[in-house]
Amino acid sequence: MQTLVIVSHPEIEASNSQQFLKEAVANQEGVSYHHLESAYPDGQIDIKAEQNLLKDFDRIIFQFPFYWYSAPSMLKKWIDEVMEEGVTFGTGGNLLEGKDLGLVLVIGVAEKEYQVGGREHFTISQLTTPYQALANKLGMTFLTPLSIFQFYYLSDKEQKILLVDYLQYLTLKDFSSLHSRAHWFMDQLDKLEGRVSEEADKFSLQSIQDFIEDNQLELDEMQLHLDK
Amino acid sequence: MQTLVIVSHPEIEASNSQQFLKEAVANQEGVSYHHLESAYPDGQIDIKAEQNLLKDFDRIIFQFPFYWYSAPSMLKKWIDEVMEEGVTFGTGGNLLEGKDLGLVLVIGVAEKEYQVGGREHFTISQLTTPYQALANKLGMTFLTPLSIFQFYYLSDKEQKILLVDYLQYLTLKDFSSLHSRAHWFMDQLDKLEGRVSEEADKFSLQSIQDFIEDNQLELDEMQLHLDK
Repeated sequence: MQTLVIVSHPEIEASNSQQFLKEAVANQEGVSYHHLESAYPDGQIDIKAEQNLLKDFDRIIFQFPFYWYSAPSMLKKWIDEVMEEGVTFGTGGNLLEGKDLGLVLVIGVAEKEYQVGGREHFTISQLTTPYQALANKLGMTFLTPLSIFQFYYLSDKEQKILLVDYLQYLTLKDFSSLHSRAHWFMDQLDKLEGRVSEEADKFSLQSIQDFIEDNQLELDEMQLHLDK
Repeated sequence: MQTLVIVSHPEIEASNSQQFLKEAVANQEGVSYHHLESAYPDGQIDIKAEQNLLKDFDRIIFQFPFYWYSAPSMLKKWIDEVMEEGVTFGTGGNLLEGKDLGLVLVIGVAEKEYQVGGREHFTISQLTTPYQALANKLGMTFLTPLSIFQFYYLSDKEQKILLVDYLQYLTLKDFSSLHSRAHWFMDQLDKLEGRVSEEADKFSLQSIQDFIEDNQLELDEMQLHLDK
């Protein structure tokens, strides 16, 4: 799985949430990070280069602060110019067909306001309809958006949970399945094991892996009974 | 009623539909036309000037080609920058409260595709949710969008009907009421009467006015019976 994270934010250095997400993917295998306003400070997009770039990836993520219920203008410009008839859609334009399109939304308002009776009135599902329609037109699979509400209020523990959710959103084929999430944790422990030297640490990591594996076996067995 | 039409189109000279709409409002009393890409060719918006401009109008119209289910990037930039906390929303930001927000959408695809089972999957009501949410946040009344589908296929007669619908959308307090539309036609005939010199023409115009008035009286009477 190769993932391209296309980020749009006009003042990214001043954004704690965007810096947090940027650090999370630094040196992450299979993930490329592409901040549009840094790549094109004069706003002039190299359309051919962007179209070529898209070819190498299985999953495209739009990551941005939710400005007036959609992307900042630079990402809109990118969509308007890079999505070209005959290249990315229409006859002969199957460049993105079968790939995933995901959204990572950084939202300043509380989650509870995005519902009937809430101050924003509409749900995130309603407000992101244009992106769902875009995925539809391009023949892409639209992923459930990852919405990060009020990042500045998150505790350290909540930030760590977000970190895992975010990395799984970018890298897991099926990030909503418990099974594939468990596998992801096993892989992470494997990698960690190769980097520790103390025998005691190796033993701890092996114990955690055994625990997850036992849990998984038990879950699978229960599932078998339910399916009978 | 003072109406400001904020137009966004990166290549407006090449657009027949936008030129048609532009000519329709030339010298139209109470309507101001403001094309963003012409006003700011370098893309740098004068935020204070735009905020001041908004004060003078009762109705704000966003007019644009439907690019990937929303406005071209220049209008998004305008929204992101001109809508400022404490000025146009939030504490002290009641600049737009009580005004109307309307959309004039120029759409290349046929109307029938914007429904379940249609090629675009979603309705215009669903796709314009971000603008509805914007109006909600600003305390504005959101008007039913005026959608112009496949302008290039319109016959001369259909173009004339569009012209009337468009002018009424911009200038009528209640453009969806038959009654106020009839009044609008009466006003137009009045103005026309002042510009013709032949007695025969004056007589024709008076006859049309009488006809509309009689029709209106009959409709009102029927309405009274229905309301009983």
